[in-house]
Amino acid sequence: MAAAKPENLSLVVHRPGDLRLENYPIPEPGPNEVLLKMHSVGICGSDVHYWQHGRIGDFVVKKPMVLGHEASGTVVKVGSLVRHLQPGDRVAIEPGAPRETDEFCKIGRYNLSPTIFFCATPPDDGNLCRFYKHNANFCYKLPDNVTFEEGALIEPLSVGIHACRRAGVTLGNKVLVCGAGPIGLVSLLAAKAMGAAQVVVTDLSASRLSKAKEVGADFILQISNESPQEIAKKVEGLLGSKPEVTIECTGVETSIQAGIYATHSGGTLVLVGLGSEMTSVPLVHAATREVDIKGVFRYCNTWPMAISMLASKSVNVKPLVTHWFPLEKALEAFETSKKGLGLKVMIKCDPNDQNP
Amino acid sequence: MAAAKPENLSLVVHRPGDLRLENYPIPEPGPNEVLLKMHSVGICGSDVHYWQHGRIGDFVVKKPMVLGHEASGTVVKVGSLVRHLQPGDRVAIEPGAPRETDEFCKIGRYNLSPTIFFCATPPDDGNLCRFYKHNANFCYKLPDNVTFEEGALIEPLSVGIHACRRAGVTLGNKVLVCGAGPIGLVSLLAAKAMGAAQVVVTDLSASRLSKAKEVGADFILQISNESPQEIAKKVEGLLGSKPEVTIECTGVETSIQAGIYATHSGGTLVLVGLGSEMTSVPLVHAATREVDIKGVFRYCNTWPMAISMLASKSVNVKPLVTHWFPLEKALEAFETSKKGLGLKVMIKCDPNDQNP
Amino acid sequence: MAAAKPENLSLVVHRPGDLRLENYPIPEPGPNEVLLKMHSVGICGSDVHYWQHGRIGDFVVKKPMVLGHEASGTVVKVGSLVRHLQPGDRVAIEPGAPRETDEFCKIGRYNLSPTIFFCATPPDDGNLCRFYKHNANFCYKLPDNVTFEEGALIEPLSVGIHACRRAGVTLGNKVLVCGAGPIGLVSLLAAKAMGAAQVVVTDLSASRLSKAKEVGADFILQISNESPQEIAKKVEGLLGSKPEVTIECTGVETSIQAGIYATHSGGTLVLVGLGSEMTSVPLVHAATREVDIKGVFRYCNTWPMAISMLASKSVNVKPLVTHWFPLEKALEAFETSKKGLGLKVMIKCDPNDQNP
Amino acid sequence: MAAAKPENLSLVVHRPGDLRLENYPIPEPGPNEVLLKMHSVGICGSDVHYWQHGRIGDFVVKKPMVLGHEASGTVVKVGSLVRHLQPGDRVAIEPGAPRETDEFCKIGRYNLSPTIFFCATPPDDGNLCRFYKHNANFCYKLPDNVTFEEGALIEPLSVGIHACRRAGVTLGNKVLVCGAGPIGLVSLLAAKAMGAAQVVVTDLSASRLSKAKEVGADFILQISNESPQEIAKKVEGLLGSKPEVTIECTGVETSIQAGIYATHSGGTLVLVGLGSEMTSVPLVHAATREVDIKGVFRYCNTWPMAISMLASKSVNVKPLVTHWFPLEKALEAFETSKKGLGLKVMIKCDPNDQNP
Repeated sequence: MAAAKPENLSLVVHRPGDLRLENYPIPEPGPNEVLLKMHSVGICGSDVHYWQHGRIGDFVVKKPMVLGHEASGTVVKVGSLVRHLQPGDRVAIEPGAPRETDEFCKIGRYNLSPTIFFCATPPDDGNLCRFYKHNANFCYKLPDNVTFEEGALIEPLSVGIHACRRAGVTLGNKVLVCGAGPIGLVSLLAAKAMGAAQVVVTDLSASRLSKAKEVGADFILQISNESPQEIAKKVEGLLGSKPEVTIECTGVETSIQAGIYATHSGGTLVLVGLGSEMTSVPLVHAATREVDIKGVFRYCNTWPMAISMLASKSVNVKPLVTHWFPLEKALEAFETSKKGLGLKVMIKCDPNDQNP
Repeated sequence: MAAAKPENLSLVVHRPGDLRLENYPIPEPGPNEVLLKMHSVGICGSDVHYWQHGRIGDFVVKKPMVLGHEASGTVVKVGSLVRHLQPGDRVAIEPGAPRETDEFCKIGRYNLSPTIFFCATPPDDGNLCRFYKHNANFCYKLPDNVTFEEGALIEPLSVGIHACRRAGVTLGNKVLVCGAGPIGLVSLLAAKAMGAAQVVVTDLSASRLSKAKEVGADFILQISNESPQEIAKKVEGLLGSKPEVTIECTGVETSIQAGIYATHSGGTLVLVGLGSEMTSVPLVHAATREVDIKGVFRYCNTWPMAISMLASKSVNVKPLVTHWFPLEKALEAFETSKKGLGLKVMIKCDPNDQNP
Repeated sequence: MAAAKPENLSLVVHRPGDLRLENYPIPEPGPNEVLLKMHSVGICGSDVHYWQHGRIGDFVVKKPMVLGHEASGTVVKVGSLVRHLQPGDRVAIEPGAPRETDEFCKIGRYNLSPTIFFCATPPDDGNLCRFYKHNANFCYKLPDNVTFEEGALIEPLSVGIHACRRAGVTLGNKVLVCGAGPIGLVSLLAAKAMGAAQVVVTDLSASRLSKAKEVGADFILQISNESPQEIAKKVEGLLGSKPEVTIECTGVETSIQAGIYATHSGGTLVLVGLGSEMTSVPLVHAATREVDIKGVFRYCNTWPMAISMLASKSVNVKPLVTHWFPLEKALEAFETSKKGLGLKVMIKCDPNDQNP
Repeated sequence: MAAAKPENLSLVVHRPGDLRLENYPIPEPGPNEVLLKMHSVGICGSDVHYWQHGRIGDFVVKKPMVLGHEASGTVVKVGSLVRHLQPGDRVAIEPGAPRETDEFCKIGRYNLSPTIFFCATPPDDGNLCRFYKHNANFCYKLPDNVTFEEGALIEPLSVGIHACRRAGVTLGNKVLVCGAGPIGLVSLLAAKAMGAAQVVVTDLSASRLSKAKEVGADFILQISNESPQEIAKKVEGLLGSKPEVTIECTGVETSIQAGIYATHSGGTLVLVGLGSEMTSVPLVHAATREVDIKGVFRYCNTWPMAISMLASKSVNVKPLVTHWFPLEKALEAFETSKKGLGLKVMIKCDPNDQNP
């Protein structure tokens, strides 16, 4: 009977607009890999983008690709060389795993490695499926008091951590976060966890801002049609002085400009949101005040610190999740995410355990 | 009549064991100075030490010296060049104010300036008195929601902040703090505020350790007669791995040794407590694991960030204060501090306002 | 007789195009100042700009201003509080001297202090004159084996040092310097001194590039009408890989764009040259490769290291000077500089000593 | 016939004092490895130590081990996954190659990885042989203008680079190097290449010091029976001020003490030389002047920068080699090295090419 055949239901994008649930073979882990029974996988804006557009910049879906990269699961099989994990271990998955020890890996910035494997970035498959194999060194054991969903949320949280770390957020800082979407919120969480005293979050949407307030923003600022300079002035007014750090999560040109005007002399603007290829910015204004402009590409070295923070209850990511769907209803989940309803949609991949 | 004569009751050490309350003239602020009506001044171990021994290392009390350097007060008069303060402003006082713009000031490490003025370090007078003048640039305005006592506690807190900053405490770190006295506790507070996930505090005294627990320690470890290696092993057991950072606040040789054994490879041991001139340490063990050994001398650039943290309620220093005395009973206050009763003794210098 | 009246011939800009040699009174040094007999002063592009346009950005010449800020001289009188200098000392002058110990001074970035005194930036007078007084802490004694002209050249060299330090130039780096004017050349010198292995210099002018080659460039690249991407590709071809650091000294939009494309992932682009207020740049390209964009505003903490380098003959700035004029012929000197003849025009202020 | 059997003459230590030339099989490279025909291998003090004592600390020779780890050779065969190298490539070999991507590798400090493979550290074989296979990612192509011997010398040079980098040597620094053996000399070379203005080298031996002078020391100081404080004072006298950085390469207790006294406040002492397990040091003196004490364990991320420096002729390591022996005379070479004659003994492994 078909029941004897092990199933690996997987969410696969074939081409723009063509998303399917299909049964894939269960993979066999290599010597340095583990096979995982997937539990919780969050939907990221990039997943929706590959479904809708079949590409992000130079990354093009040329053959069917499994989506999903914000994930956690349980080890069910370990490769012959794996020592630090064993079947039954609950793990969070870092989706980027370098394929070779190149110059970037050697200096600890493996996120910049051009040949890195990365879940659900073409041509690499993601983990929105029942069973998935991954480099064991990039699977991190979860303590008992950290849930699978928290484990999956380490991925977006890592973007915030990496941004704040690149910005050098430190004790007592005032921080401006532009944008109150999921990435804005994890940047807010990371900034507060790293010792920021006051964080202002800006957005066009009042409902997003109220979520930011709920998650810990000290101030919120709803933008309508202010000029970049006016936004900068309002931010300074709220904080009492210019923020040492601005984390720009919208990619919108005027918001980037506002970020430059707003940031304290000697401070840092981090670009997390990506907009159009060319951007017009007041570079002289930034340069003569020594406001550094730094970008982030994904993250590196964030899982261990994120797990420590979750285990010690120093960061609370749970309010980020607003919707849940079983893997069988993944298409519905993607429709929900696409509509921008709520914040983070979580897909539950284990038919026998839909708990957090 | 006597009523016409302005009074400036001051606590003065003359020689070892000779501490007196005397009436000093009220000073006149220079162009860059402010005159302050003192409000709250904490007693530091060094104040008690000058009283008992008349010296600390090369700093010798050769003429009568006013004690006190953990202080806050109200501006009553401003010098001709002062722009950022005005009478009525409530301020916290940074006791070290450089006398000249030397090489250390220029690079932002003014605490190392050999000619720095420092309250209650011979021959410079402190501020355990009614009226005191200070460099206006080293007086920091307190927001309304920060009390004078919190303002005075910025000084010990600064030691913790400077130590943790030199250690590079960052998000998710595990930290060992050796010693649960006031400096151990402020190091604990600073480490947590900078994102440490788990902090272990060690001490000989169970009562001190229970205060550490109350203030936020994740783990406490009472030391009896374990070897340094055994202490290191116990710390690792509690944390699940070696701490990336150790803040040593006792100055005891075996504790410093334990700190070296305990710290994670590539981590940092910061020496805050000072012991005997020569110390025997397992340097090879530290060196081959690239455990850095760093000292701290007072602090620099901590007041603004401490005020931000207090204003945003991100740090709670209030539990540190266990005793209060009016300035008139300063001798009694020093006896209390000397006996090691409680933690921090606060002296209230304003006869008309003994509030926090 | 007129001979009894002490003379202080000074080069004064009154308004755009109006430059005069006038006799000013000899100033009296304050307690922390020294009076200097000026020796050698280089002409900077900004001096010429104030003469031609009466302003640079928000800095406007509203009253007559003495020009000159690349300078050295001899102490002839010291203020009452000055200890480290005495009459007869030969010194190099750091033109920026903070007026107050503000937040920027405290952290060692005094160049960002908004109230800083700066020679020949309105309304502060410069030192193209016979006698000049300056903050003694910002006058640095020259060793016997460093000439006055080398001392004056520390100012432009400091721009290169500050840029390379902000870029983090380190051992073995490949560096791209855009622009072969004086600032490009000092950036080249600083980069090599800090351990850069290979430096490419670009410019439109073949003669400037041949000077760059003479001064130590490993490669030169003459730009005609290549696209930014083509320039980047040529640079990579010359070096064998992308440069970790780019020092942009032209302020030209296409050159800034080329700098972004050219810089190695994870590297740094430093903006030294200033162009128009708004600049269109491929920010996404920079951000996703984590190429940091940093500006520089003047410099700080460079004189001591520059003097050490000059004293040990590790840097040779002498080839930068191509023209010499006595102060009496300052107008002719400015005409020469304006025409862009040669590289650095040096004005000799001491009628009795026109030696280097 | 015997002639048909490929030979792989190897220098093998069996137990203390028992060193043999033996014929080993030629290894087969794995998928990520290359097979190298060895060319030049320097003898390190640790090689001699394993031969004489059979152990260094916890590393014990329990089975026959090939010596040698300062090496260069030519690729003769590449593994199936190797892309960046091909037969005929001349390479320098980084002897430490991590076995797994652990926490230390991920942050770019792979030298601290406890499971790292390291040539000629028990139980891992070295490369004093004819043919040797190595992780291809840790073989670095040599430019045509860098000789095999320079390639082999990158290993000791890396110790100096890593030490100076950990010390933060920067432009214009004054540096004290304690010890004029090979490691002292490479520290001197690295310090100068990183921009140090003046370097003092100390040693007991006049002949070693004269070599230091030849290699580039600005000052040499012969130690006889001065106290640590006296040495510190003499160093300050030579330099005109205390050195910002001290690189201690002797491991002798009094020299470490002198290093602490000698280093400028706020500076760094790096421990390269290793002495006895426990060391008595003036920790309070170091701590209160914020002199950091850092150790080094081997090195990481140094080969690329070293090759750049050698290719651009910015560093000259050639004077370090004083003796040459063919592999067949390796025992004689070790006797020479053991006697401390000369500086660096180079073994030539290719019978057909004994050139540098």
